[in-house]
Order: sequence, then C-alpha cells, then structure tokens
Amino acid sequence: MSAWTGAGRRIAGRRIAGRRIHIQEVGLRDGLQAECRFVPTADKIALADLLSGAGLAKLEVSSFVSPKAVPVLADAADVFAGIARAPGVVYSALVPNVRGAERAVAAGVGEMNLVMSASESHNLSNLRMTRAQSFAGLADVAALARRHGIAVNVSLSCSFGCPMEGDVPQQDVMDWCARFVDELGVQGITLCDTTGMAYPTQVHALTEAVRARWPGIELTLHFHNTRGMGLANVLAAIDAGADRFDASLGGIGGCPYAPGATGNVCTEEVVHALQLMGYDTGVDLARLLQAAVRLQDLVGHDVPSQIVKAGRRLDLHPRPAA
Amino acid sequence: MSAWTGAGRRIAGRRIAGRRIHIQEVGLRDGLQAECRFVPTADKIALADLLSGAGLAKLEVSSFVSPKAVPVLADAADVFAGIARAPGVVYSALVPNVRGAERAVAAGVGEMNLVMSASESHNLSNLRMTRAQSFAGLADVAALARRHGIAVNVSLSCSFGCPMEGDVPQQDVMDWCARFVDELGVQGITLCDTTGMAYPTQVHALTEAVRARWPGIELTLHFHNTRGMGLANVLAAIDAGADRFDASLGGIGGCPYAPGATGNVCTEEVVHALQLMGYDTGVDLARLLQAAVRLQDLVGHDVPSQIVKAGRRLDLHPRPAA
Repeated sequence: MSAWTGAGRRIAGRRIAGRRIHIQEVGLRDGLQAECRFVPTADKIALADLLSGAGLAKLEVSSFVSPKAVPVLADAADVFAGIARAPGVVYSALVPNVRGAERAVAAGVGEMNLVMSASESHNLSNLRMTRAQSFAGLADVAALARRHGIAVNVSLSCSFGCPMEGDVPQQDVMDWCARFVDELGVQGITLCDTTGMAYPTQVHALTEAVRARWPGIELTLHFHNTRGMGLANVLAAIDAGADRFDASLGGIGGCPYAPGATGNVCTEEVVHALQLMGYDTGVDLARLLQAAVRLQDLVGHDVPSQIVKAGRRLDLHPRPAA
Repeated sequence: MSAWTGAGRRIAGRRIAGRRIHIQEVGLRDGLQAECRFVPTADKIALADLLSGAGLAKLEVSSFVSPKAVPVLADAADVFAGIARAPGVVYSALVPNVRGAERAVAAGVGEMNLVMSASESHNLSNLRMTRAQSFAGLADVAALARRHGIAVNVSLSCSFGCPMEGDVPQQDVMDWCARFVDELGVQGITLCDTTGMAYPTQVHALTEAVRARWPGIELTLHFHNTRGMGLANVLAAIDAGADRFDASLGGIGGCPYAPGATGNVCTEEVVHALQLMGYDTGVDLARLLQAAVRLQDLVGHDVPSQIVKAGRRLDLHPRPAA
C-alpha cells in the first residue's frame, strides 16, 4: 500500500481522504515583491479579502521592510488597516528588524515572519549580514513579539540548497532550527526552497527529521517550481507528515537566479491537485480562480498558473456535432 | 517507510536507488507535430542522433500519417533513412492505418505505435471514427506488423479523462487494453493523459490495475503537464511499479484544448528529478540539455522547459565578493 491510493484508504497509518492540508498564501508579499508594478493599496486589500474569503489558512499580507528598499510594498500598514479580518485566518507579515516589528505591532499583525538563510553566502548576498548577525537581530525581534503576545515564524531560506554554495547539509538546517526553536521559542518554522533546488527524497528526509525532533512546532514547507518539482515536493512533504504549505496565487514570485523560470508553487495548482487526491484544503477553488484572474489584471501580465490557462480538470469542452 | 526516502533504501520491496526507469522521447513526433514551423529533415536527423546518443531508451521518430494531414512530419521516411541506429535504442513511429504501416515497414521502423482514444467523443473528434472503427483498422495494422515481425505498441488516448466527456471509467480503459492485448497480441500499451487530466491517486490505481492484469506487457505512461501535475504523476506511476515514460524534449507538444498551457512532460525535467532521487535513467543529462537548447533554435521560440531556463540544481552562481 502506498501514498498514492487515494480516497478512503489509509497509508502507513496516515489518512489521505479528508486529511486537512493548510494552504498559506504568500502572493501578496513574496509574489508582489517580485513585480515591477505597484499594485494600488485598494486592490491589494480587495485581493486579500478575496483570498481570505476563499478559505486560505494564512495570508502573508505584506512586508515591514524599509519602504525605500521595497517600494511596491511600502503601503504595508495601509493594507493591514484596510483588510477584513476573517475569523480563523492568520494575517502574517514579513518583519526584518526591530523597527519593522514596531510598525507590524502597530498594524495589528497576527504573526511576524522572520527571514534568514541557512547558507552563509546567500545570507550575505540577500541580507548583507552574516547568519550570526541576522540571528542576533532576529532575537531582538522575537523578544519584542513575545512582549506583545504575537506569534513568530521563522522562514529559513535555502534549506534545500544554495545557488552559490550548492548543497546545504541537513545538519546545518537542523542546527539553525534548534537555535530558533530552543533558544528563541518561535512557534513556527518554514523550510524554504528559495531557488527551487529541493527534490522529493531530500524533502521527505528533512521534513521527517524536523517533525520528529520538534513535533509541537508548526512546520511549513515553502517550495518554488523553478525546476518543475514544486508539486512533487509538496506531495513528498505530505507523505512525511507535513500539513502546511506556502503557495502563491498565479504562481507569481520569480527567482533572481533563474530569469524566466516560474516562481512559488502556484496556489490554485496545489489546491486543484490536492482536492483531486482527496485532501481537504478548506479552499473554495472557484473563488480562488476568480482571484487569480483578477491578479493577472493587477500585475499586467500572464501568470505562470496552468489552471488559469487550462481550467480545472472537469471544465469540459463541447462534444463534436453528431 | 515511504516511497520518498531515496537512495539506498527499499520501499515495500521496491528498490529506489539505481532502479532503472526508461525514458522514451516523443518530442520529434508528438512535440514537432504541434509546431507550425517545418523543421528541416537534416535537423530532425541530427536531433534524433543527439537524443539517442544521450541514452534515451526509445525515440518516437515521426509519424506515417498522410503528409497532407501533417505536413511538418511529411519527411518521415527520409528521417528514418538518415538516422544512425544506436544499439539498444528502439526507433518507433506513429502508424494510423495500413497504408502508413506499409510505409513504416519500408522505412525500417523498430516499432509501430498505434493510437486510438478510450473516449468515444475524443476518438470521433480526433480521428473522425468511432472507437469500433478505429479498432478494426488497427487490427489490420497489427496483423501486418506481425507478418513483418515488428513490435506493436498501442497508445490509448484520454486514459485519464476526456476533455469532452470528463471522467473515463477505469473499466473502459481496462476493456480496451484487453482487446488490444488479448485479441491483437500487442507488445506494449501506453496509457496517455492526452489533455492533462490525470492526477496522482488515479494514476496509481490504474497503473497498478494494468500491471497486475498484464505483467508481461510493456507498460508506458504518457503525461502532459497541462495542469502542473506531470512530474507528480510520473512519481505516482513509479510508485505503482511503472518504469517507462514518454516525455518531450523541452516540454514541447501543446494541447489544443488548453492554448498557452505546457505540453508533454519535459524530458530534461523528468530526468533531472529522477536522477536526483536516485533512479537510473541511463540518460546523460548534459547531452540532453545540449539537444534542448538546439531544439529552441529549431522551433524558433522558447520551450516550456524549466531546466533550460534555470539550469540544473547544482549549476551554481558566483558568491558575493568578500
């Protein structure tokens, strides 16, 4: 018996049919950050409300980085002020430092998402700091969040490989997770495949190791489809017990190391596939697709989403005339 | 223990590390057939030789349909006359009828690939015949092939769903397989996901059923990535015991029902992923990528391949200056 036998069966003690998988939307932050065009604040708010209405478990709404560094997300506070807060939905934001954290607290974020890289070269390149410097700064952010009773998630970039260093040893990833969980007491860890280097057997092994060591931690997997392995990696992680995934509406959110390649795994593709397999995503796919079509207008170009182009599996075509 | 644990382990009695998976290239036929531009015969021959040199198990070299119906493949006989026949590589061709079969025999094909649809509507739409009419015609082709000692494979379109009828019952697919295997004595069956409707649990179930009933038949799975599930379906089929897959260089070969969507699963993406997981594809990925880059020039546009855009997982970038 294997993980693929679908509806109504159990695999190695795990339920497939009806098993809940939480889909967390990162398009508003990770996606829009990669766009050149500034999406007007009112449109961001409307899109966020469409997404929460479609049943997504968590939205990364924006980023409290310097508005000068990322002008397309300079309206983070206004977006938070405008969105409807749907019951049960977590509204998260990326927070790089204490100044950002103070703005995030004022905006009423439900969770702070802290980012650093498991790879020294990528951290230096992306954040202009050593990992040790990043960790020290994020410790201050986590302390501030704790004082305000706000949950903290850490996104560990390059957990499955670094575009400059290559393989990142699993032990390095585990060691950084340990520092965040055991020293800082964060509530969640996201293992990020920042540049699309993850592959299914590797994903299974790391997911299993992290879950076994920290069963109480909310574990998220964040995949990019850069080399076409996004969905396969999601399924490998589910098979290892994971139940939370970041995904980006339309599949937006590219990678600076792979111009022209697709970005984050596409929310509607992941939801479409998981629902067909019998998983419960809690998402209304029809409403999600309305949001994806709207997103195309907002960003002003086609999005990578195959579901936007091809429709759902059972969106049928007319039969030939008899 | 699951199917994802990778190198060196065994799963439910199946070997992952070093397990041989046969990759069969359909870009020269299924791919080029979807292109507007006629690729010159000499370029087709050079591409075929690059592909056999890269270690692919089988090439669908061309199609012996009416040259008027598919002008871009009108040079089938010349291509067969020009290619080098690498030892161990099967050179296949699509054969629609007895006239095509006679041309295929004269060209020295190693295998005839016969096509019909598991769905009546799709067969009527695509081949302008009922399935019963198709079967009768293909029986004549199979008889001719047998007289000449040439192997026959049947590709059953829409085995995982029909864009007009929706779900195709697994029993219908099994019944058509039975007619080809038990009545006509074909050597191989390809279950084709013609318009990208297959999903992993379904793939697992059908693969398992066909393998259990006809263990001596050479079973191939043919997936399109139309809805982003191509690689996940390949892995699901492997998990159910399949070891032969069609794939298309560059991922070319679109679907008329989904304009703009990607086509066949991409050969270099499948090989890249399977090799990382520890499977033995017998393919030299570097040489395969040279062929993919050349293909882009021949068709005159970018191809869907993510590996052409992003490079292999460990094609590294310079580290930041200290």
